[in-house]
Amino acid sequence: MSDSTTTPARLPLSERVLHGDARAVARAISLIEDEAPEGADLVRRIFPSTGRAYLVGVTGAPGAGKSTLVDRLIAELRGRDRTVGVVAVDPTSPFSGGAILGDRVRMQAHAADRGVFIRSMATRGHLGGLARATGEAALVLDASGKDVVVIETVGVGQDEVDIVRTADISIVTLVPGSGDDVQALKAGLMEIADIFVVNKADREGADRTVASIEALLSLDAFGAGRWRPPILKTEATTGTGVAALADAIDRFRAHMTPVQGERRRARAEWRVRELLALRFVQHVHDRILSPGEFDRYLDRIAARETDPYTVADEILRRAMNPAADRPAGSAGHRSERA
Amino acid sequence: MSDSTTTPARLPLSERVLHGDARAVARAISLIEDEAPEGADLVRRIFPSTGRAYLVGVTGAPGAGKSTLVDRLIAELRGRDRTVGVVAVDPTSPFSGGAILGDRVRMQAHAADRGVFIRSMATRGHLGGLARATGEAALVLDASGKDVVVIETVGVGQDEVDIVRTADISIVTLVPGSGDDVQALKAGLMEIADIFVVNKADREGADRTVASIEALLSLDAFGAGRWRPPILKTEATTGTGVAALADAIDRFRAHMTPVQGERRRARAEWRVRELLALRFVQHVHDRILSPGEFDRYLDRIAARETDPYTVADEILRRAMNPAADRPAGSAGHRSERA
Repeated sequence: MSDSTTTPARLPLSERVLHGDARAVARAISLIEDEAPEGADLVRRIFPSTGRAYLVGVTGAPGAGKSTLVDRLIAELRGRDRTVGVVAVDPTSPFSGGAILGDRVRMQAHAADRGVFIRSMATRGHLGGLARATGEAALVLDASGKDVVVIETVGVGQDEVDIVRTADISIVTLVPGSGDDVQALKAGLMEIADIFVVNKADREGADRTVASIEALLSLDAFGAGRWRPPILKTEATTGTGVAALADAIDRFRAHMTPVQGERRRARAEWRVRELLALRFVQHVHDRILSPGEFDRYLDRIAARETDPYTVADEILRRAMNPAADRPAGSAGHRSERA
Repeated sequence: MSDSTTTPARLPLSERVLHGDARAVARAISLIEDEAPEGADLVRRIFPSTGRAYLVGVTGAPGAGKSTLVDRLIAELRGRDRTVGVVAVDPTSPFSGGAILGDRVRMQAHAADRGVFIRSMATRGHLGGLARATGEAALVLDASGKDVVVIETVGVGQDEVDIVRTADISIVTLVPGSGDDVQALKAGLMEIADIFVVNKADREGADRTVASIEALLSLDAFGAGRWRPPILKTEATTGTGVAALADAIDRFRAHMTPVQGERRRARAEWRVRELLALRFVQHVHDRILSPGEFDRYLDRIAARETDPYTVADEILRRAMNPAADRPAGSAGHRSERA
């Protein structure tokens, strides 16, 4: 494990991140969040030093008390002498400074502890931009030497599922009653849950929620050697059940060690696909289409003279037929041809 | 307006959809959901006949009672002699047949009414696959002659926001208390809300929720001529406030008529970008990479011999440099060069 340190500002940012400099980590994540080119270069530089941290994904319906649960988990893991980084996916409207404020409040609980770093990511871009930025922020915390990186998401949408799916373990948090539990279970979370946590377990209906999860799990045979997701009850406000959660995480980690590689491979595949899509759309706008040409396509679609499929195919064909469109300059992509 | 009819099966599917054949509509949406090539061709064929329906997006936190609210809204709109199609984005785990079952239950309320069609979409694919499929299902209902198409999403994630943003009007549903309201407001929903609905308004805390929305809205000046989202209280179970909601929808529609085109143009732009990304990734796998080559890239990333950025750039460069890789066959993309 490594604690946060400070390094001379004259060092390259990637170097300072690798030394665990908290200010450098914050700066690096900001570059990634802003989708700045330096962010991509940074990820490129630190990537060889990543893969050591254990990525813990935590999601669930809004109001499930995930932040409080994660804060308790941080304390528990610190007690086990592990450094912790947290990326909280916290989409925030420009009207409210929720994310940043939330960070300050949460950091105070661990202010004296240089072994903890918490950072929120706000919604950005398209084509899975938020999920990509989150994954890259996790890489930064990994490279900075954090033993455990928690990826915490609000919501039960596809994006949240994608984000948590890229972690080494996925923890689905539910809250008794109010129908959220059922909704959350329906919302594609069953497939990704390695551990179920029923938080606010002191609330009425907690056992009913546990039973409904059990009922769904019972529909699956879980063959020999396959992990059966445990259902844990916690009270994050008091810390009840959090030690048991940390134990369950360790059990899952040990259980999955033989197939750890597969999960990380799937993560790499997802990353490359997302990047490929992003890079191509950028390329089309920078190199293939003339100024205002995309707008004219949209006008024709709006006028129903053509349709999005035909336009997408036409642009793709043009991009693949560079003789017609592509300036010589675009051969200059950075690359390491194998 | 047009009611559902039946047409001879020998007619092309697109023809039968344009005639409002409910079975053809169901079949068409299944093709889209399965990402079948016939689905893309169908959208291409019906697209010129779309753009007549008014798209109403409804989202909000889980447990906000959206389905019940939408069912009441259907009845209200039918009372105003408008045909209604509903696409319910309802991510469902393979363990539970929730979506299909839900449709059956919900359809029964309107079983005798051929002017209503309700269909759930389950999570599919990557790169905004669900949002794309939802938008295309809405196109099918539009082409089938429905006057109003409601797009209903569960969850408050980025995907849900993207889906609802593509509608002509975005209705954000909240429920009093339980912290969901605050979470939902934070989750990027403020920007997209044209109408706020506080459902289950008989519950304690309803006025507090209204006040919290008012407080957020008051941070925005809303210049002359700009629409200020109304905050409506409803009780979907009894139907209270649903007529007022239908009125508010009509008011917004009238208010936005001058700028209707902009919103639909943005929708077209979003569609083309998503399709472009999807088509390119498909192209790379079909035409650029040799069998097993992508896996070898992933192995090198997993071994930290390279990184996702370098691989994405290399694949992009190869795709843009077809002389090296591209078989002659790939010139055969369908296209209508202007």
